Amino acid sequence: MKSTWSAPLRFAEADQQGIAFNAHYLTWCDEAMTAWLRAIGLPYDSLLDRGLDTRVVASSLTWASPVRWGDVVAVDTCGERVGRTSFVVRFEVRVATRPCCTVLTTYVLTDSTGVPEPVPGDVRQALLARAQLG
Amino acid sequence: MKSTWSAPLRFAEADQQGIAFNAHYLTWCDEAMTAWLRAIGLPYDSLLDRGLDTRVVASSLTWASPVRWGDVVAVDTCGERVGRTSFVVRFEVRVATRPCCTVLTTYVLTDSTGVPEPVPGDVRQALLARAQLG
Amino acid sequence: MKSTWSAPLRFAEADQQGIAFNAHYLTWCDEAMTAWLRAIGLPYDSLLDRGLDTRVVASSLTWASPVRWGDVVAVDTCGERVGRTSFVVRFEVRVATRPCCTVLTTYVLTDSTGVPEPVPGDVRQALLARAQLG
Amino acid sequence: MKSTWSAPLRFAEADQQGIAFNAHYLTWCDEAMTAWLRAIGLPYDSLLDRGLDTRVVASSLTWASPVRWGDVVAVDTCGERVGRTSFVVRFEVRVATRPCCTVLTTYVLTDSTGVPEPVPGDVRQALLARAQLG
Repeated sequence: MKSTWSAPLRFAEADQQGIAFNAHYLTWCDEAMTAWLRAIGLPYDSLLDRGLDTRVVASSLTWASPVRWGDVVAVDTCGERVGRTSFVVRFEVRVATRPCCTVLTTYVLTDSTGVPEPVPGDVRQALLARAQLG
Repeated sequence: MKSTWSAPLRFAEADQQGIAFNAHYLTWCDEAMTAWLRAIGLPYDSLLDRGLDTRVVASSLTWASPVRWGDVVAVDTCGERVGRTSFVVRFEVRVATRPCCTVLTTYVLTDSTGVPEPVPGDVRQALLARAQLG
Repeated sequence: MKSTWSAPLRFAEADQQGIAFNAHYLTWCDEAMTAWLRAIGLPYDSLLDRGLDTRVVASSLTWASPVRWGDVVAVDTCGERVGRTSFVVRFEVRVATRPCCTVLTTYVLTDSTGVPEPVPGDVRQALLARAQLG
Repeated sequence: MKSTWSAPLRFAEADQQGIAFNAHYLTWCDEAMTAWLRAIGLPYDSLLDRGLDTRVVASSLTWASPVRWGDVVAVDTCGERVGRTSFVVRFEVRVATRPCCTVLTTYVLTDSTGVPEPVPGDVRQALLARAQLG
């Protein structure tokens, strides 16, 4: 399943070149992730309530075009794949239909003490409910 | 007593006008505050250890000149005045000898639950040990 | 005239105390200012087109209550007063109906080289069109 | 050649989990990049003076351990490889000797209009002067 997070580029997010500074893409993806977890029925709080947590272990960003001041940033989010204790989420950052950046982020699922935890069946199903609805 | 916190302006802190975005001044002052508390013998952790905490209740900033990329930000910090449960800290942001911004921030001293707490005598003395050493 | 800017608190904007770090209030007010200029018929670009610009010279923030993760930040913006070359804008930051922070920011109007410029009549009128519509 | 950029973690950079938020790693690497270019005799301004510029096209981050408040962030920087119009820089983020994150960032060299430009011989040599001195 896919969800979209969106916000106008903030003035403070544009650098001297008039384009979004690269670090902010990870901030937007973090917001998009929260929104997506909610959209797939796994709000972050519900994970915490089950004694689960997530930790980012890797992230790769590939830029195609810049975001400029005046642009509205949109981030489409969907599950990419699920491993035993980790999963990968795909974020497509765009301005209208123009692709700006692809971000693939690997999260490990942990217990509340940070120890990796096998992804429960229902969580796996929610993370991968992409084909049906994306 | 006075202490100085200093750091080169980060590229991401300069906006499209090539000058430091105004919000970052409060981030620098927060770092300068931590350094100053340490310098006056009141490291933040020591306050927490005594069941005390601080909360920012007001801050006023007056700009004199901008900080540009390539500049090194320096923040001179000293106690301004101490009330019954609150105190004011003065931050002078400058680049070399050029004044950039004066920030006056009011903190309230609280217990660990956030309830205002009278400033203990030794804390008051440390906060005001300015005349002697500044 | 009043306008409102709004956004959910970002995870990265909350500090270790679980509340919005104070510097971010100025970032939100900057976004609120841009939206308000548009709402009063003075979009920032139209100022630039007329050879005008603005510079922040002072800002005072008074906090009433914190913004927490999960909260939606709203910033109501209106003109406070207009001087010869400067004007003051009032920002009321709130979460639903709970007041969080009042920010009063003084801007000076300049020409494109940064020299203060008297506020033109139509600009003055737009900045103060508060009573009628606020 | 290797250079190291270093700064204490800022309070505003730690999130509710008490650890550095992931986006800030790219901000630190950007500062480390600027310092490294200076260290290898290619300060960013000297590139601009030659009509050259750089653009980030990809970045991959792999985390090993978190940075906590109180930690001093250090980023060791060195050239990884140089292509025809692009080059990869390696950033090792650590706290003392504890590895925290490895970042590999690909930059494309451009002319002042953003069109990719072959890496000049002396630039290539400076970017790769790693083995000798690292």
